[in-house]
Amino acid sequence: MSNLHEECGVFGIYDLDESQDVASSVYYGLLALQHRGQESCGIAVSDTSGPKGRVKAIKGMGLVNENFSREQLESLKGNIAVGHVRYSTAGASTRENAQPLVLNYAKGTLALAHNGNLINALELRHELEVSGCIFQTTIDTEVIAYHIARERVKCGSVEEAVGRAADKLKGAFSLVVMSPRKLIGMRDPWGFRPLVLGKRDNAYVFASETCALDTIGATYIRDVEPGEIVTVTRKGVFSDKSRCNKSEKERGRCIFEYIYFARTDSYIDGVSVYNARIKAGRFLAQDSPVDADLVCGVPQSGNAAALGFAMESGIPYGSAFYKNSYVGRTFISPKQSQREKGVQVKLNVLREAVRGKRVVLVDDSIVRGTTSDRIVSMIREAGAKEVHMRISSPPFLWPCYFGTDVPERHQLIAYNRSVEEIRQIIGADSLAYLGIDRLPDLIGGKLGICNGCFTGNYPMKTPDINIHNVLEEE
Amino acid sequence: MSNLHEECGVFGIYDLDESQDVASSVYYGLLALQHRGQESCGIAVSDTSGPKGRVKAIKGMGLVNENFSREQLESLKGNIAVGHVRYSTAGASTRENAQPLVLNYAKGTLALAHNGNLINALELRHELEVSGCIFQTTIDTEVIAYHIARERVKCGSVEEAVGRAADKLKGAFSLVVMSPRKLIGMRDPWGFRPLVLGKRDNAYVFASETCALDTIGATYIRDVEPGEIVTVTRKGVFSDKSRCNKSEKERGRCIFEYIYFARTDSYIDGVSVYNARIKAGRFLAQDSPVDADLVCGVPQSGNAAALGFAMESGIPYGSAFYKNSYVGRTFISPKQSQREKGVQVKLNVLREAVRGKRVVLVDDSIVRGTTSDRIVSMIREAGAKEVHMRISSPPFLWPCYFGTDVPERHQLIAYNRSVEEIRQIIGADSLAYLGIDRLPDLIGGKLGICNGCFTGNYPMKTPDINIHNVLEEE
Amino acid sequence: MSNLHEECGVFGIYDLDESQDVASSVYYGLLALQHRGQESCGIAVSDTSGPKGRVKAIKGMGLVNENFSREQLESLKGNIAVGHVRYSTAGASTRENAQPLVLNYAKGTLALAHNGNLINALELRHELEVSGCIFQTTIDTEVIAYHIARERVKCGSVEEAVGRAADKLKGAFSLVVMSPRKLIGMRDPWGFRPLVLGKRDNAYVFASETCALDTIGATYIRDVEPGEIVTVTRKGVFSDKSRCNKSEKERGRCIFEYIYFARTDSYIDGVSVYNARIKAGRFLAQDSPVDADLVCGVPQSGNAAALGFAMESGIPYGSAFYKNSYVGRTFISPKQSQREKGVQVKLNVLREAVRGKRVVLVDDSIVRGTTSDRIVSMIREAGAKEVHMRISSPPFLWPCYFGTDVPERHQLIAYNRSVEEIRQIIGADSLAYLGIDRLPDLIGGKLGICNGCFTGNYPMKTPDINIHNVLEEE
Amino acid sequence: MSNLHEECGVFGIYDLDESQDVASSVYYGLLALQHRGQESCGIAVSDTSGPKGRVKAIKGMGLVNENFSREQLESLKGNIAVGHVRYSTAGASTRENAQPLVLNYAKGTLALAHNGNLINALELRHELEVSGCIFQTTIDTEVIAYHIARERVKCGSVEEAVGRAADKLKGAFSLVVMSPRKLIGMRDPWGFRPLVLGKRDNAYVFASETCALDTIGATYIRDVEPGEIVTVTRKGVFSDKSRCNKSEKERGRCIFEYIYFARTDSYIDGVSVYNARIKAGRFLAQDSPVDADLVCGVPQSGNAAALGFAMESGIPYGSAFYKNSYVGRTFISPKQSQREKGVQVKLNVLREAVRGKRVVLVDDSIVRGTTSDRIVSMIREAGAKEVHMRISSPPFLWPCYFGTDVPERHQLIAYNRSVEEIRQIIGADSLAYLGIDRLPDLIGGKLGICNGCFTGNYPMKTPDINIHNVLEEE
Repeated sequence: MSNLHEECGVFGIYDLDESQDVASSVYYGLLALQHRGQESCGIAVSDTSGPKGRVKAIKGMGLVNENFSREQLESLKGNIAVGHVRYSTAGASTRENAQPLVLNYAKGTLALAHNGNLINALELRHELEVSGCIFQTTIDTEVIAYHIARERVKCGSVEEAVGRAADKLKGAFSLVVMSPRKLIGMRDPWGFRPLVLGKRDNAYVFASETCALDTIGATYIRDVEPGEIVTVTRKGVFSDKSRCNKSEKERGRCIFEYIYFARTDSYIDGVSVYNARIKAGRFLAQDSPVDADLVCGVPQSGNAAALGFAMESGIPYGSAFYKNSYVGRTFISPKQSQREKGVQVKLNVLREAVRGKRVVLVDDSIVRGTTSDRIVSMIREAGAKEVHMRISSPPFLWPCYFGTDVPERHQLIAYNRSVEEIRQIIGADSLAYLGIDRLPDLIGGKLGICNGCFTGNYPMKTPDINIHNVLEEE
Repeated sequence: MSNLHEECGVFGIYDLDESQDVASSVYYGLLALQHRGQESCGIAVSDTSGPKGRVKAIKGMGLVNENFSREQLESLKGNIAVGHVRYSTAGASTRENAQPLVLNYAKGTLALAHNGNLINALELRHELEVSGCIFQTTIDTEVIAYHIARERVKCGSVEEAVGRAADKLKGAFSLVVMSPRKLIGMRDPWGFRPLVLGKRDNAYVFASETCALDTIGATYIRDVEPGEIVTVTRKGVFSDKSRCNKSEKERGRCIFEYIYFARTDSYIDGVSVYNARIKAGRFLAQDSPVDADLVCGVPQSGNAAALGFAMESGIPYGSAFYKNSYVGRTFISPKQSQREKGVQVKLNVLREAVRGKRVVLVDDSIVRGTTSDRIVSMIREAGAKEVHMRISSPPFLWPCYFGTDVPERHQLIAYNRSVEEIRQIIGADSLAYLGIDRLPDLIGGKLGICNGCFTGNYPMKTPDINIHNVLEEE
Repeated sequence: MSNLHEECGVFGIYDLDESQDVASSVYYGLLALQHRGQESCGIAVSDTSGPKGRVKAIKGMGLVNENFSREQLESLKGNIAVGHVRYSTAGASTRENAQPLVLNYAKGTLALAHNGNLINALELRHELEVSGCIFQTTIDTEVIAYHIARERVKCGSVEEAVGRAADKLKGAFSLVVMSPRKLIGMRDPWGFRPLVLGKRDNAYVFASETCALDTIGATYIRDVEPGEIVTVTRKGVFSDKSRCNKSEKERGRCIFEYIYFARTDSYIDGVSVYNARIKAGRFLAQDSPVDADLVCGVPQSGNAAALGFAMESGIPYGSAFYKNSYVGRTFISPKQSQREKGVQVKLNVLREAVRGKRVVLVDDSIVRGTTSDRIVSMIREAGAKEVHMRISSPPFLWPCYFGTDVPERHQLIAYNRSVEEIRQIIGADSLAYLGIDRLPDLIGGKLGICNGCFTGNYPMKTPDINIHNVLEEE
Repeated sequence: MSNLHEECGVFGIYDLDESQDVASSVYYGLLALQHRGQESCGIAVSDTSGPKGRVKAIKGMGLVNENFSREQLESLKGNIAVGHVRYSTAGASTRENAQPLVLNYAKGTLALAHNGNLINALELRHELEVSGCIFQTTIDTEVIAYHIARERVKCGSVEEAVGRAADKLKGAFSLVVMSPRKLIGMRDPWGFRPLVLGKRDNAYVFASETCALDTIGATYIRDVEPGEIVTVTRKGVFSDKSRCNKSEKERGRCIFEYIYFARTDSYIDGVSVYNARIKAGRFLAQDSPVDADLVCGVPQSGNAAALGFAMESGIPYGSAFYKNSYVGRTFISPKQSQREKGVQVKLNVLREAVRGKRVVLVDDSIVRGTTSDRIVSMIREAGAKEVHMRISSPPFLWPCYFGTDVPERHQLIAYNRSVEEIRQIIGADSLAYLGIDRLPDLIGGKLGICNGCFTGNYPMKTPDINIHNVLEEE
């Protein structure tokens, strides 16, 4: 039930069988990644059997579901494709900023899909502008595109240009780049954002999460390593690991992917998101136990941690809510008038499940606190005797520079408040967060993580100001 | 996960405070009832403070969410309103057949919303036609409308006309009728379909289910009794129970409302749908126990019964699936080609939850069997050691004449097949259905129920042929 | 440039070759009749080779052009069809009121398309309501439909029922009625509104105007006579003239069809609309000559009369305006603010054509006078030395009861004003109207006409009040 | 009735009164220029009173009328704006290629609207690519944008950068450039495409044609001179004529703007389009007289020349056609099947006007000949005794490199055919074209013109191949 937003999902596919059109596979892959971005989406295709360099793309605002008709999908002929779903962290939510970014340059055509956020984007952009570049979007991806294009003129292959460009980028980037004859996946050396490689028959697939592989019937091969460049050509798959230059503990995998962003059925860097959440629940039950009759998750993201809490504590697990799946994006929100105040359209309580019970509510996070407040009240009004809140992450205290939309500090409920103060605000009988020291163990304790949003310590030096949306104001 | 379709949801509201516009309340109420029908929807309003007899309506194909803009809602001025969501059981799925049906007649204007199915609609229609009536739709509601209009000319009030018309109708009908100054709710004497009465400040509300009351912040008063006519006027609420002429055991409440159709958070005739499903699960655990490691529901409708099974059996309850909530109505289905065969967009398995486990899967019903087959395979491919299927209803064997879209017998997997044969088809390690004798106990054992779809015994004599869609062929 | 609105256009086609789908012919026919109504449109088809009584219809608000996709047209399978374009004279502009009206009754299915206005619709409707009928629209057509249905039960054929129903109707009606096996065209005995019969290969066609025949490549056979019922069946064309019971001089052909409503390229009752307008211009030049340098029409409806004036007077004919054909229905009108006051989007003056000239401007009518005022100013500001207005009809003074949307008397500029007073208001140097005595000669002097809007003398007794829109208020 | 397409229309406005929003003026201006391009359109605004550098734009495929809602127009706040309507001569018809092109660069933001075609675009693009530039569109405008951005870094002002960029461009360009605080209009030194300057209250306006000034109520000041840069800032209007370096006879005003492209009510370089066409008709009458009864234009573009022919010859001028204004862009074209062959939706003949007459038909051009063939047949079938075709331009024989979509030579009917051969193909009794020597006199004889499409002589050296659409193929 977090109001945090993931930034983007990327997808790429290259079917070595040239007779296969892959646009519909991208469509299904993007549907599986839709939770990573709902503002805009797009698909670009290239046909290696067709005239050189022809890339066709369809992009639009809104959901995958709303943007593509069967006719349109069928018009996207080609056996290589790249797709993107977007939530805007940097750059406004406009049609111009939709990805994949398709461009022509000295060596032909490229299509780019990018997940992440650069912390030196403004500097790089400024340098480019001074050298005479123009920018038609406000997304970091355009900066990356320029660097690839400029390097490509100087070196022998697109994949080499991608690597050279990457050397100049600081921050989070999981990239899928399509040239008319190649598909390249790359992940920044810190590994902030996930990227996996899969296979289906003769096709190789890149995706932000394994769930997209499952959805299209592809098999997981492995994660792209932080710093690795994987290139798919007509001749097969090639890996360049020369930039895998961080030690494991220097790396900065976003721990919040496991806690909230990713789908429960996905695996990131070999670790099951589901298991990580189960563990978070177990840790909470160990560290902050409570005597209760029922453990429930706040739908949907709190469910797995709630199950873990139940397993560990022995308190029965159940559901306390009915979630209305018919409330879509075009839903007309109730006004703030007295009359419509009581309207509860998205979530209703299962009174029979909670009446007279001491309820443990597990959620992934508390951001501003308003949702938690309302949910605790709903459960209580439905007759719960006690409501205990357990949060499967530490308190949010710091900005994210690497591709997540955390609000400014003064809007964060945990900023300058004790846990007891927060408890009072949300009206729970007790409240506990997951301890920071528990985070590494969620994913096995061996992988380097970024927990900057909880600690203020980031895997790399961060700028003094939060760069979000700054571009828009210039 | 049933593919059965409920027929309709109805909603009505009368705010005695004439300054209050109620269209947005209908909108939220219909959103709460959307699970009862997704083919078309509509809202009709009347303003008791305005010129006599002006009724304004907006209707359309598709979801509530898609059909109303804020401007449109605001254009529907008035303090009485009636709303409808529809799935077509009789009558084609066309704009003409969308409800509420709005009509002018000798005494003014009426708007009707109807949930149910008449078994004598064809005879009544034929009689009306012979007497010179014309029909512009193919829905039963138009037959009801004619009868009300004809009776109204002969008697003193709309509510009396509704009653007299009802005397001629055989079958299932939960009706909300709006005249420019009155709002009337009526339920057939058998009580096939639900209808409740609620209140919010000065407004009285009718709705198919209590969840719609919760959604708009109204309080449940009571269910409309089978055969009762409840009339709301400027002077208050009046009840006519002269047609409550069936003994409780003669009544025919649809047991499938509890098993599948209604929302888990609703109460029908005072009985919690959630509790009924928990009981179904408990009964299954008692009657058809199995040694296993995990109990899961088939989302979403199987979840509560699965929880009941877990409670009773002591086997841990959990979730085995991720359900993609971004797959909307306009979703482009995978083709039946080899290539798109493996595509699994709507439902993916949580491998970590089921791997190596003996899993009990609980679903509300098996209709044709194709879905169950696929789901059992998915769980098994994800690594489950055993898959045991438990169905929280008896096998479907007979048609429904009272407002549900049960396929023809030869399409039903249970028709002419033993449970063992079905088990083999769906590939489960064991399969058990809820016993027919358990049905009354789901809802306390005292209320008269219709279980015709399982037994072939209906609360009233049924026609020789299934009347669905016959009108279209004439 | 009149702001008067024609009420409707009707079209029907029966291809005796059952293998021919005719929906696209209706589509093109309705495009040709679009000037007769732009509010809603519809097509209904029947397939005589298919299952008995299946009629399929598509209707919608707005233009023909906007309402039908190729897929939709192709889905309308069948060799009989009826179509309609509507401007609302009686009955609100809503989807419910769109035609053709499709209905089921004791003897099967009917689809009706109606052009005209009944003056006894309210009485007939009241009688029907008292006998238990319900009305789902507010159009006269529903009254006609009931009468046909009721008569059909008592007599031997649809065409006979149409005739018996017609005996009860007073006012203007040109009707096309489709039963699953027949297509019937009828015109009221006064002949207010036009209706022609044509033929293309094996298909018979009814249309409001001959231009629709030309458009689909059909040949004109003859006009349906006032009072005649023409029936097309599998066996051919049959005529019933038993209701052609008015003498020619009793008839009431709407003279305004010739002056403004109909297309210039149409023929009504054998008389060319173009020639009638040329004559109107000639008469104006004879009766109200003026010394001038240029004769122009107000686009488009004034052009033919202007040409007639030029021919008769010897003054050169030309064009004074550029009309922007890209200003569609969804055009955002300029606000009445100071800033947008000067905005002239639809019509611009050809300065070079009028500068320094004495211009005769010919228009078909002046209704409220606001348009004329603006146009005279525009011409003058563009440098014309003199502007002389000539109107090819007499002044509007009385309501129309027969299917035209004339505003209420107090809004008519000619009401209670002399021609000199009107001239001053519109700012012309001179102004003259066509004399009432000239009207019969426009169409040869032999056909009975209705000139009630100019004289207050109607071909039949009219009600005391104007019935337009009364239904909406009840 | 030419099937040639103009390339684009541009519009810009700067209201020195900062409180005035100008988006609606652009909207009306673009409606007036819609004949210059119907594929895509867009508006970009800047608010000089707002935060520095914020430019907001809305673009879309299709007509102005279809792309902007009132809400959208109102969301475009600002007192400077630039607008564009496009027909694609170079660059595919896609959303990406819609203008204005909005970009950020070292010195801030720019929005560009361009009418014309560069002949060195490919070379310039190649140079830019080699230097590391990327291209997101396939339009020349992006090349221009890069040049302006690169020059701006090196010089003191945007207007200076526009000038320096222009020095590198070869071909046709009428440009409107908006920076956050300035509006700049420039025309190439040859003056191929028109551009005028106007004024309304405190606002200065650039537009492709004067008709856009008239439409928004602005006054014509003067044409931008070939080679001139006009800059509007907060302080007023400034002119830089240092690039007006061609003598009048070296200039290359497109003569086809006068013959066909521009609106009849526009003035280009001080010459009335209407008068030019009247003259063309007069010249035809002098040079190729014919004995006839009626002179008609092929709607609409042939009308003025027809009037000129009538004036000169003394033969009466009239109209031979009814043009259906309800046939919009989404119109479903008749199939080429036998059945739909006779369908004539857009144009019908006024039989009464032409029957028995010797008709002179005047059209602006014959491109492929198919339209002329059909029109001559229609007139003849309607009963004309003779049909004489007069064309108000010389035969098309050569490609246009400067912004017009002339088909390839082998598709031109005049290519390798004598006038007599063409006459036989179109079936006219006689045929004559305007002589090439008459062209200068159409516009006064003193202005330098480009008549390359008739003569193959262009005002500048042209490339060996036609560059249209080449970019798409690379």
